[in-house]
Amino acid sequence: MDNKLTLGIFGFGVVGQGLYDIISTKHLNLAIKKFVIKHPEKERTLPAELFTTDAALVLDDPAINTVVELIDDADAAFDIVARALRSGKNVVSANKKMIATHLQELVEIQNQHGTSLLYEGAVCGSIPIIRNLEEYYDNELLHSISGIFNGSSNYILSKIFNENLAYDTALRQAQELGFAETDPTLDVGGFDPKFKLAIVASHAYGLYISPDTILNIGIDKLRTADIRFANEKNVRLKLVPTAREINDKAVILYVLPKLVRPDNILYNVENEYNGVLVKAAFADEQFFYGKGAGGHPTGSAVLSDIAALRYGYRYEYKKHIDAGGLRYSTDWEISVYLRYEDERLVEKLGFTSISERYYAQDFKYVIGRISLRQILENKADIDRDGVFIAEID
Amino acid sequence: MDNKLTLGIFGFGVVGQGLYDIISTKHLNLAIKKFVIKHPEKERTLPAELFTTDAALVLDDPAINTVVELIDDADAAFDIVARALRSGKNVVSANKKMIATHLQELVEIQNQHGTSLLYEGAVCGSIPIIRNLEEYYDNELLHSISGIFNGSSNYILSKIFNENLAYDTALRQAQELGFAETDPTLDVGGFDPKFKLAIVASHAYGLYISPDTILNIGIDKLRTADIRFANEKNVRLKLVPTAREINDKAVILYVLPKLVRPDNILYNVENEYNGVLVKAAFADEQFFYGKGAGGHPTGSAVLSDIAALRYGYRYEYKKHIDAGGLRYSTDWEISVYLRYEDERLVEKLGFTSISERYYAQDFKYVIGRISLRQILENKADIDRDGVFIAEID
Repeated sequence: MDNKLTLGIFGFGVVGQGLYDIISTKHLNLAIKKFVIKHPEKERTLPAELFTTDAALVLDDPAINTVVELIDDADAAFDIVARALRSGKNVVSANKKMIATHLQELVEIQNQHGTSLLYEGAVCGSIPIIRNLEEYYDNELLHSISGIFNGSSNYILSKIFNENLAYDTALRQAQELGFAETDPTLDVGGFDPKFKLAIVASHAYGLYISPDTILNIGIDKLRTADIRFANEKNVRLKLVPTAREINDKAVILYVLPKLVRPDNILYNVENEYNGVLVKAAFADEQFFYGKGAGGHPTGSAVLSDIAALRYGYRYEYKKHIDAGGLRYSTDWEISVYLRYEDERLVEKLGFTSISERYYAQDFKYVIGRISLRQILENKADIDRDGVFIAEID
Repeated sequence: MDNKLTLGIFGFGVVGQGLYDIISTKHLNLAIKKFVIKHPEKERTLPAELFTTDAALVLDDPAINTVVELIDDADAAFDIVARALRSGKNVVSANKKMIATHLQELVEIQNQHGTSLLYEGAVCGSIPIIRNLEEYYDNELLHSISGIFNGSSNYILSKIFNENLAYDTALRQAQELGFAETDPTLDVGGFDPKFKLAIVASHAYGLYISPDTILNIGIDKLRTADIRFANEKNVRLKLVPTAREINDKAVILYVLPKLVRPDNILYNVENEYNGVLVKAAFADEQFFYGKGAGGHPTGSAVLSDIAALRYGYRYEYKKHIDAGGLRYSTDWEISVYLRYEDERLVEKLGFTSISERYYAQDFKYVIGRISLRQILENKADIDRDGVFIAEID
């Protein structure tokens, strides 16, 4: 059952190096044959013959039976992963955007070619949420899955709320520590947690939902007035992706900043940590907590996937097989806090009820109920400077 | 791969009923043929033909391929489980005492007869810790595993610390809610978390450690003076089992009350919830949180095991195969708070250092460092009324 793996690895960034560190301290039945890199001019800590810029040296090498894909570029990553799976190689990837965008096609390729694609490292670093959804909650009725999926945004929010740092200073710190993506919009704009949410929801509910259709609003419009508001109300702001079965026919998915009360378990998730909260009919409330960013935590998830390939492990996508007519919906009302400047925005959004309004010269907000569909349809207006929206716990 | 299971279930208590509730709401490829019960005179909510008092009707029925063991009596449970495994049936059990006591023998029987014994429900209710240690952390270097493993004790401590209930009142409430074992000593004396610790440590470190050799001290000697002390120091008391690799040769295991600081993630685990904290070299700090007691949470873990048997799942005990010379040790110093009456106890315990002493007419304590071996050797004296010991965070 324990097959020797020969690895070709695409990428030698923070995760690739973390993975190398881990593999080199262990006696596993596997060997790294080649790293494919983009910048041969960079100095490397390992022997030069381990590196190449030629993808074919991995993809066309029959001695390499396992490809590990750890590059930034989602389009290039999809080409690599699809080619590898089609040529009979198993693949481990940590590319959330690529997987969220192409999941249905990737599942079909796996089925056609009898190969296995694992991607635990793509979702919440070291937290084994995909594996648990696949193997452990496969017969559970899952009410909802939510949490803190983006270590970089959470680090920034912790610095703002606990150390009174300015947004820009906190962002710079996160980038210096290697928590933030090269393009910070992916993190602070809520795209990264949206990709992860789409992947998680697929394993939880058996649906393929295009990330383009999922609402994501980030923390980049957060201003001092919002922080003061949160502090006065004794709540903390977190960036929270949510997937919820609203009835036996429909599932909602969205990413929004959320004003979280102290009795919510997410309130105490700080810095680069992630947390996944699973609410299930029988298991009740389950919470998984761990490091969501950094080379070693993500490297450990990638290694766990590699190790599982030695035993022929593959995701069964069981919930897709008996998905039973669930569909993706945006017809669901939530309570929000909206800071705005232009009164017409409040009118346009069509709140179904308003419970609080506040006017001052430099700070206006409204608290009320609004449907996800209305937020999605007016996203361009909400994304403007001077506007900030957050869900209320 | 998806084999139809026909179940014989021993026990129809809170977990057995929870399991029946779950199975009856789902379309799974399994059927319950018989419940074996001890008290036929009790009124049951299900048809009489489902029940029998004759174990042979399950164990000798070739149509039953899966036995679920959910009874209190650990000796009787071992006989049932061993007989079932030897006769080619797979088994799911939630009996922590039985498994902790007989684990090595049970593994040998599984290997001899090619059958599978799963017991996720025996450890921390709904939290999938065994499965994750087996499947996900199988290549991780695990520094330590600790947490809150006993929902009943934790419920009592929450009521004492958050609602100022007296110990006896809180214990009675826990029993009324069905969280506490029939014999409360198992919970509040730290035996139940010790059995769970032995099982967890076995999957984490590949060792079989007899529970008799593991230190367990519970919360039953807790008095008002200790509660006042904890409140003054802004710490909370929790009952914490710990397994830790102290170097590459030795592992320590013990169950002690612990004075936990607010920045410890266990501080916020309240009531009947359990939490398992895994510290690993690469994944870093991982925390699993969920309901540790009650029919549905434990029933959901048992169901997950049953579902896994449909796919031929078995624990591989991988860490036992490459255990690499780890042994169980008690040569390790910890910091403790000790309330006492008789000065001779402090002398006898042989503290290696003392950092604080307090004397008053009705309250004397010492804070210092002491080896686990010394605590174990003097357990009879520590277990006396008038003495309370707790680890310091």
